[in-house]
Amino acid sequence: MARNGNSGAPELMVLMRSTASSDEVDHIVGLIQESGAGAHVDQSGEATVIGVIGQRAQIAALPFESLPGVERVVPLRKGFKWVSREYLDRDTVIDICGRKVGGRHFAMMAGPCAVESYEQTLQAAKDVKAAGGTLLRGGAFKPRSSPYAFQGLGVRGLEILSAVGQETGLPVATELMDARDLEPVLEHIDLIWIGARNMANFNLLSELGRVRKPVMLKRGMSATVEELLMAAEYVAKEGNEDIILCERGIRTFERSTRFTLDLSAVPVLKRETHLPVLVDPSHGTGKNFMVTPLARAGVAVGADGLIVEVHDQPEHALSDGAQALTLDQYEQLVTEVRTIHEVISPVSV
Amino acid sequence: MARNGNSGAPELMVLMRSTASSDEVDHIVGLIQESGAGAHVDQSGEATVIGVIGQRAQIAALPFESLPGVERVVPLRKGFKWVSREYLDRDTVIDICGRKVGGRHFAMMAGPCAVESYEQTLQAAKDVKAAGGTLLRGGAFKPRSSPYAFQGLGVRGLEILSAVGQETGLPVATELMDARDLEPVLEHIDLIWIGARNMANFNLLSELGRVRKPVMLKRGMSATVEELLMAAEYVAKEGNEDIILCERGIRTFERSTRFTLDLSAVPVLKRETHLPVLVDPSHGTGKNFMVTPLARAGVAVGADGLIVEVHDQPEHALSDGAQALTLDQYEQLVTEVRTIHEVISPVSV
Amino acid sequence: MARNGNSGAPELMVLMRSTASSDEVDHIVGLIQESGAGAHVDQSGEATVIGVIGQRAQIAALPFESLPGVERVVPLRKGFKWVSREYLDRDTVIDICGRKVGGRHFAMMAGPCAVESYEQTLQAAKDVKAAGGTLLRGGAFKPRSSPYAFQGLGVRGLEILSAVGQETGLPVATELMDARDLEPVLEHIDLIWIGARNMANFNLLSELGRVRKPVMLKRGMSATVEELLMAAEYVAKEGNEDIILCERGIRTFERSTRFTLDLSAVPVLKRETHLPVLVDPSHGTGKNFMVTPLARAGVAVGADGLIVEVHDQPEHALSDGAQALTLDQYEQLVTEVRTIHEVISPVSV
Amino acid sequence: MARNGNSGAPELMVLMRSTASSDEVDHIVGLIQESGAGAHVDQSGEATVIGVIGQRAQIAALPFESLPGVERVVPLRKGFKWVSREYLDRDTVIDICGRKVGGRHFAMMAGPCAVESYEQTLQAAKDVKAAGGTLLRGGAFKPRSSPYAFQGLGVRGLEILSAVGQETGLPVATELMDARDLEPVLEHIDLIWIGARNMANFNLLSELGRVRKPVMLKRGMSATVEELLMAAEYVAKEGNEDIILCERGIRTFERSTRFTLDLSAVPVLKRETHLPVLVDPSHGTGKNFMVTPLARAGVAVGADGLIVEVHDQPEHALSDGAQALTLDQYEQLVTEVRTIHEVISPVSV
Repeated sequence: MARNGNSGAPELMVLMRSTASSDEVDHIVGLIQESGAGAHVDQSGEATVIGVIGQRAQIAALPFESLPGVERVVPLRKGFKWVSREYLDRDTVIDICGRKVGGRHFAMMAGPCAVESYEQTLQAAKDVKAAGGTLLRGGAFKPRSSPYAFQGLGVRGLEILSAVGQETGLPVATELMDARDLEPVLEHIDLIWIGARNMANFNLLSELGRVRKPVMLKRGMSATVEELLMAAEYVAKEGNEDIILCERGIRTFERSTRFTLDLSAVPVLKRETHLPVLVDPSHGTGKNFMVTPLARAGVAVGADGLIVEVHDQPEHALSDGAQALTLDQYEQLVTEVRTIHEVISPVSV
Repeated sequence: MARNGNSGAPELMVLMRSTASSDEVDHIVGLIQESGAGAHVDQSGEATVIGVIGQRAQIAALPFESLPGVERVVPLRKGFKWVSREYLDRDTVIDICGRKVGGRHFAMMAGPCAVESYEQTLQAAKDVKAAGGTLLRGGAFKPRSSPYAFQGLGVRGLEILSAVGQETGLPVATELMDARDLEPVLEHIDLIWIGARNMANFNLLSELGRVRKPVMLKRGMSATVEELLMAAEYVAKEGNEDIILCERGIRTFERSTRFTLDLSAVPVLKRETHLPVLVDPSHGTGKNFMVTPLARAGVAVGADGLIVEVHDQPEHALSDGAQALTLDQYEQLVTEVRTIHEVISPVSV
Repeated sequence: MARNGNSGAPELMVLMRSTASSDEVDHIVGLIQESGAGAHVDQSGEATVIGVIGQRAQIAALPFESLPGVERVVPLRKGFKWVSREYLDRDTVIDICGRKVGGRHFAMMAGPCAVESYEQTLQAAKDVKAAGGTLLRGGAFKPRSSPYAFQGLGVRGLEILSAVGQETGLPVATELMDARDLEPVLEHIDLIWIGARNMANFNLLSELGRVRKPVMLKRGMSATVEELLMAAEYVAKEGNEDIILCERGIRTFERSTRFTLDLSAVPVLKRETHLPVLVDPSHGTGKNFMVTPLARAGVAVGADGLIVEVHDQPEHALSDGAQALTLDQYEQLVTEVRTIHEVISPVSV
Repeated sequence: MARNGNSGAPELMVLMRSTASSDEVDHIVGLIQESGAGAHVDQSGEATVIGVIGQRAQIAALPFESLPGVERVVPLRKGFKWVSREYLDRDTVIDICGRKVGGRHFAMMAGPCAVESYEQTLQAAKDVKAAGGTLLRGGAFKPRSSPYAFQGLGVRGLEILSAVGQETGLPVATELMDARDLEPVLEHIDLIWIGARNMANFNLLSELGRVRKPVMLKRGMSATVEELLMAAEYVAKEGNEDIILCERGIRTFERSTRFTLDLSAVPVLKRETHLPVLVDPSHGTGKNFMVTPLARAGVAVGADGLIVEVHDQPEHALSDGAQALTLDQYEQLVTEVRTIHEVISPVSV
């Protein structure tokens, strides 16, 4: 376990009054630690929240509700703890090199499916930025169903992304498939994502819990919403709470789309967790003509951002060209998405 | 088979020039009929389209392309014919007692899940109308998984809907489950819908093909998009082309929602058929807090309307109260939906 | 409601001792009726079981446990009542013109997908009988996804089945799709089945509850096991308890088979209900080469019978020929199935 | 790429006559290599098969059919090559420390879900062996949805398995989740399996392609049959052809079982690949009472073996106790399974 990790699950949380003094907080933390349990203090909101970590029986004996400064004590009932809205009832905002995601900050991540060359990636980044995109995506390691398909440029792809990021000022994001590639990814990349196929690769999730980089988890193609939250808990448990979730389509019987983009998952996730939720309409549909409608729907349903594949010559892409938007299509999409985002009022969840 | 029905499938269509004379059209129709095949003439668009019905071999001998007035001949390759956009490349607009659905006409159908009494239904209709709704829905015959659950008021429910429709001026819609109830339904109701459980009740579909009333088909919970289109073809084949389609959620492994609302189906349907497509976010999710987000997403993804359950006292509803919106929620929804509908530009499909 | 139907759901059941006298039974039935509740007496097992029908509150006041002859009182907690093993803990045996299904009686139903002619059907029946089949299946009304596909011979098909049944001595089974065809079906057919597409056609189910003919319900392609049991409850509630269930494949993401035959449903059903359960490996797979393996698996998993499509010239069948077994294949299958049925010991469920 | 790996996909195969001399084979291999393509010679069957690896265009120029000793040339059309029955039309037999799997050799793998201690594992192994089991399974690394659940004993578990294997003579199998654990797993374990959650962990698959140990791939819970075969191709491509496949249940809408065991996949796999196919009825159902029926069905449908969880005190198991068979249940199962295996004749596929 990491030295500073969240080495267990909070069993209950002590909500302090907004007027509680730091002495009152310290007193409670002291009592918790004396009992052998652990305390996790969160002061990011208006009032301090103390997560109490330990065996339920042990904790039950502590008389929190009668202590000075305590507003309320709330037991946590779900399997996921750190990531639950039950635990932190706010909208977490993730900062990726100055670009914020979550709350009312809407992320427009875009770029090519795979990094193919420096020139292609630089051009894509410039185009994405000009069109209003805020983050650059690009695959250096590509998970492909067939061992005979293009597998990505590997570390060379990471270097290209890094150089392009510096040149354009866009933070860069890429997929990590193997813990053994973690070091170069940490060196070059600003946001690490775990693809759908690795959402239940629990060792990889735990590794990412021990780094200081924002992480995005894409929902597995047969993962329930609850399993996605449990995967996030694997990361959060180790201490990394900068986690973004992403809906990208599930497997169903329907054959006219590659996956069924489950937009219902977005309001469910927003209700269950304080983490930001993005939608990927490109992989979710697999077809160019569906990306714009589903992207519009993604913002309308309440997502905190979109990840869209863009390629200036989709027909020449080495990977997944059929689903990439052209730059003109993307530019129009950004405008519409921004307008829809303004229109919708937050739904209380 | 109905005397005036579309008694076979068109195998190809002859697109006439917009300058073609009616003599030229008549000449071609005559040739087709002489050969033993059938002709279906559609003049709803700018140029006349002649559907040629018969055996492919028989038709192949006719020299359409060299005849005067002919622009182009297009063979139809899909299993569905009358309802395909291949056959009619336009947006069909359905007129329900003066309220239009399709094209740029957006339908806001709303009302209680089940008709419970005259008073409740009248109040609901007034409220729906005041909030901006355009059609009243209400179930008189209720399909319920359990034989011990409330099964609806039957014919009495139809009479209530009819009376309320006359009082408020809202067209009324209800579900038909059994061909033996067709007569009173035709007498009292303006739009007949076929529920998800009956989407593949082919006899019922054929019956509706022989009436002169708009019909709405809800997608079966395990029906593919193609099967929904084939169900519509059952209706269209008999001569009734006033058909609306409705996405209402499919069965998947996900357990946090009752069904998975498949919004991807909307752009696929809009590409494949000229018929209007509605979305039902109430049955698709089964939970109040998800209805508004999914309704917004429905309009954003390109649907031609929404069907929403509204109840002034959801906690007292005899059926499905948990998913009904309150009137305040519905009123706000109508405003947002209208704005989003303005924002989105038609996606070329 | 039918005069003699099971006009409500039993809320609890009174198990009498095996030594209870008929006077003791009558006394209890009298008390129940005086209270305004209903009583349903089942004496098919070793000891009498009295189902008590009415409001839970009303029944709760009756002091069954202290009455003479009473062994035990069991409240029924599931949504399905009459068909539950909770209610009747035995294996129901259905008699179809002398052929038994259920308990240790294994049914081998076979025949062509569709009745095409008298000659074809007679030959099929003779062949099925010679190979060891016990019931003849054949479709007179065919549910087809496309309105342009062969729809069956209708009433003429029923007459053929009836004549062939009389000539060969095999009971005959066919699918009923429409309540309006019930009369001729009752006249000609020994076992009526409801196809997957109509499993949730609740009106049709209720109709069949009011006839005196064995009924087989095929599981809907997206119906849960519980929904199949609720569909059976619709029939049983009206008084017809001669119900057979049939697993025939569900819709999943897998594309190498037409449906996914859910053999796990068999042990679940055997645990939950006393009704016999058959397996249809032909429609469940859609491919000839899979029928024999899945048929073997069906008997091994504990089903009470198999329904197999057989055609002497599969390549000339008007419907579903690709999945029909040849007669040689069927003959070998019958032998293997009988042997496997001997091998397996009943699993206590 | 591994030095001795199958470093590309065979594009076609040259079937030699059974009378071909080794000179004739060498001559063809020489021609292939001169052209710049690669040759893979398989002499495990009656006649030699030469796989030709390279670009299709390049290979097309070689005049194989006119060369002495050549029987026939077959182009390979599927995405999977090395593992396809198109490529090798035989039943591959895998040898695990003397225990054979495949062909007519039926594997009975059993043991506890997780290795908990030396004593528990030794007892389990002795019991499994006495009951007729042929391989011992036990998890040292446990993939758990919740980070707060028991995660396995890790390397200590491997050492226990190894010791128990030596004491009892049973080959031992365990799951590998992380390439970084490969070394100790190779040291202690006789059969390495990849769990459902890692079936699409392509890096891990490629690693296993480069070792000399039998590998078992469990089907991902939303993987198609074709994707399972592509995963096997990832292993085979690197040179390791000792691969066993395992069906263990897929995600569907049905809620009465944890997964839906897809037994239809077995005949499809047997038709598509020469690799052995096992069935895991324990994880596929998640419930004790279903394991025996589905195990029987697994052998009846044509699988080459079964993996069953057995625990002498299921109620005390640290992991998945609810689905484990008791030893008495397992012993009876082995007897029945062996009998059913005798009964069924090979289905030609």
